Amino acid sequence: MALVVHKYGGTSVGSVERIRLVAEQVRKAKENGDRLVVVVSAMSGETDRLLGLAKALVERPSGRELDVLLATGEQVTIALLAIALQAIGVDAVSYTGAQVRILTDEAHNKARIREIDGDRVHRDLASGKVVVVAGFQGVDENGNITTLGRGGSDTTAVAMAAALAADECRIYTDVDGVYTTDPRIVPKARRLDVVTYEEMLEMASLGAKVLQIRSVEFASKYNVRLRVLSSFVDGPGTLITAEDEVMEEAVISGVTLNRDEAKLTILGVSDRPGIAATILGPIADANIEVDMIVQNVGSDGNTDFTFTVHRNDYKTAMEILQLTAAELGASGVTGDNTIVKVSIVGVGMRSHAGLASRMFRALAEEGINIQMISTSEIKVSVVVNEKYAELSVRTLHDAFGLHDKSAAA
Amino acid sequence: MALVVHKYGGTSVGSVERIRLVAEQVRKAKENGDRLVVVVSAMSGETDRLLGLAKALVERPSGRELDVLLATGEQVTIALLAIALQAIGVDAVSYTGAQVRILTDEAHNKARIREIDGDRVHRDLASGKVVVVAGFQGVDENGNITTLGRGGSDTTAVAMAAALAADECRIYTDVDGVYTTDPRIVPKARRLDVVTYEEMLEMASLGAKVLQIRSVEFASKYNVRLRVLSSFVDGPGTLITAEDEVMEEAVISGVTLNRDEAKLTILGVSDRPGIAATILGPIADANIEVDMIVQNVGSDGNTDFTFTVHRNDYKTAMEILQLTAAELGASGVTGDNTIVKVSIVGVGMRSHAGLASRMFRALAEEGINIQMISTSEIKVSVVVNEKYAELSVRTLHDAFGLHDKSAAA
Repeated sequence: MALVVHKYGGTSVGSVERIRLVAEQVRKAKENGDRLVVVVSAMSGETDRLLGLAKALVERPSGRELDVLLATGEQVTIALLAIALQAIGVDAVSYTGAQVRILTDEAHNKARIREIDGDRVHRDLASGKVVVVAGFQGVDENGNITTLGRGGSDTTAVAMAAALAADECRIYTDVDGVYTTDPRIVPKARRLDVVTYEEMLEMASLGAKVLQIRSVEFASKYNVRLRVLSSFVDGPGTLITAEDEVMEEAVISGVTLNRDEAKLTILGVSDRPGIAATILGPIADANIEVDMIVQNVGSDGNTDFTFTVHRNDYKTAMEILQLTAAELGASGVTGDNTIVKVSIVGVGMRSHAGLASRMFRALAEEGINIQMISTSEIKVSVVVNEKYAELSVRTLHDAFGLHDKSAAA
Repeated sequence: MALVVHKYGGTSVGSVERIRLVAEQVRKAKENGDRLVVVVSAMSGETDRLLGLAKALVERPSGRELDVLLATGEQVTIALLAIALQAIGVDAVSYTGAQVRILTDEAHNKARIREIDGDRVHRDLASGKVVVVAGFQGVDENGNITTLGRGGSDTTAVAMAAALAADECRIYTDVDGVYTTDPRIVPKARRLDVVTYEEMLEMASLGAKVLQIRSVEFASKYNVRLRVLSSFVDGPGTLITAEDEVMEEAVISGVTLNRDEAKLTILGVSDRPGIAATILGPIADANIEVDMIVQNVGSDGNTDFTFTVHRNDYKTAMEILQLTAAELGASGVTGDNTIVKVSIVGVGMRSHAGLASRMFRALAEEGINIQMISTSEIKVSVVVNEKYAELSVRTLHDAFGLHDKSAAA
């Protein structure tokens, strides 16, 4: 009898009718013989409604009290789902984060899970109950309610699966799996049967918003088999697991697109040790995250230094960089917030050489100019003008034959 | 420095604006030097909204899960009030029933408080914090969330006051105190400065819906000074306290009216031991509460037996009584659901004879026929036709000079 954790997000439990459908789905899984823990989010819109009430009182509510407030969202859902399950004859019991004792640190609004005591849940499962657990929330050592931050319910589900040594953690969502690329851009994009944790992490961080990055990290750390599948359509979804479980490995698993980037360049600064820190320090101090960084040293010992930030931070970053340029006696500052980042991701890169040049060639054949390049062990990213965004994705999807499972190489 | 418990009901915290007003009021009290615990209800309408969600799933949701659901209502309010207090510079901390550990029995939806550990709250108060506590909810020994039933927030406030040995428990509501009678019927009805627990209990049970009966019982048992006052208008309200604290005691404190009654009579049953139980047993078995009971034995050894029930139960009670009448060979059954009960209440009755006859005479002078009479130590109730409801109340309010504080006797 498999022990499976299900997780349903806000849209899946967005109304009483939807909750009833989830209950039906849980019943079916139980009738198939699974022992079940179900983690749920707040009903869609509820967290924003609560946040709105708090913000109407003060711009920056205290973290502790905000957590007390927001935790009610999931508490409503667990009670309603337990009631819906009981209504169709499924024995069920609900627990808040504090009750099941998801012990976290004290970092309100972005707490990290430290420990989950699975004994109580194991006892309930042994007595045939479905256990419904509030996602997103926990409790610190002093009994204060904490929350894990947006998307924390995915992390709760994976953490529960790890604590209970579950056979699988299924994240039900509004898409039916992880795709080779965005099907809105490439209609023949293909659902992947399986990807590795690392690939999923790269894809998530590159803009494929199926899963919270933290939950994938957690799954990777504790080796939890994670499956993404649709709440509304039957299907196997996509399994996210360790590399050694992925048998027929494609070289490239997917092409991702990130439209949120802007790039900044400081021109003609003298190339000396510590120059990168001098340039990026003030940016970091302003809480602006830097993504790609490229530095070219010219023959004159001067260097052009380029980096990308989130588009929302472009203006602020530019102001900071202009101050830095003045201090350093740089010859100028330029910027561009009409760029995008396109990446290919795949663990197969480790064993296949020449993929980057294949990528560059494919883009060149379409006349797409590459502005920046950055590589990691299992990914190559390029920055191109945003007018080439979709064309770049389609070109790469074709070039690596991603629509065709057998051809993928 | 007095330790005072404030309690604000759903209307007083019904919106963000109202919560801000409550926060201001709490700040003023704190600036006057009080140490403060504030108990709050769910925002008005919220409990019904949550109940509606549950009922949309199933007619009778499980008690445990319903309590998990409903407890979120007060949890939202405590967080918002703590945030509102912090926003105006008042150090505050919120606690759910489980966190402050209001330990109850396991009777979901109508739990009884067993114990409150005041240590944590005393520590917070000592450090200058205002402590905001969720009303209506508690936790059983196994960590399950419980609720105290409708109006339970009053009981939470009184229980907190008892546990903390508070100097006073102030119930802020939409009326500015307890009146000699309903001001809508008698415009010159007078706010009472003070009433005893017993009088308040009689008035509450007779239809004056200012306070939950249980909270008054609790206050009486633990000798908590209770004050009812308006959330919106400044004023001393009405103090509800022990008899020995009430100095200038009026003979009669108030006149109450209960429109929810209906009476039933079984005619001509033989008067033998156990006949009352035979008649009322099936009524009790149907969970119908009987209020007044009158039995007259005729010279022929037969008796007419009359009792009153809630008007909503009239039809069911009549059906049951007809069956009983057939079994007993009674000569008939009659009933009337166009009656009301009018009562005078006052601890002064204990020491003043002749009040009942003064009441009957006053009614007789207005031609009002009395259908039933029932008395307790501090109250006399009569049943009259509902067309005399307001006239009876006005007549008695006048007869006992209740509008005039000095004349009251």
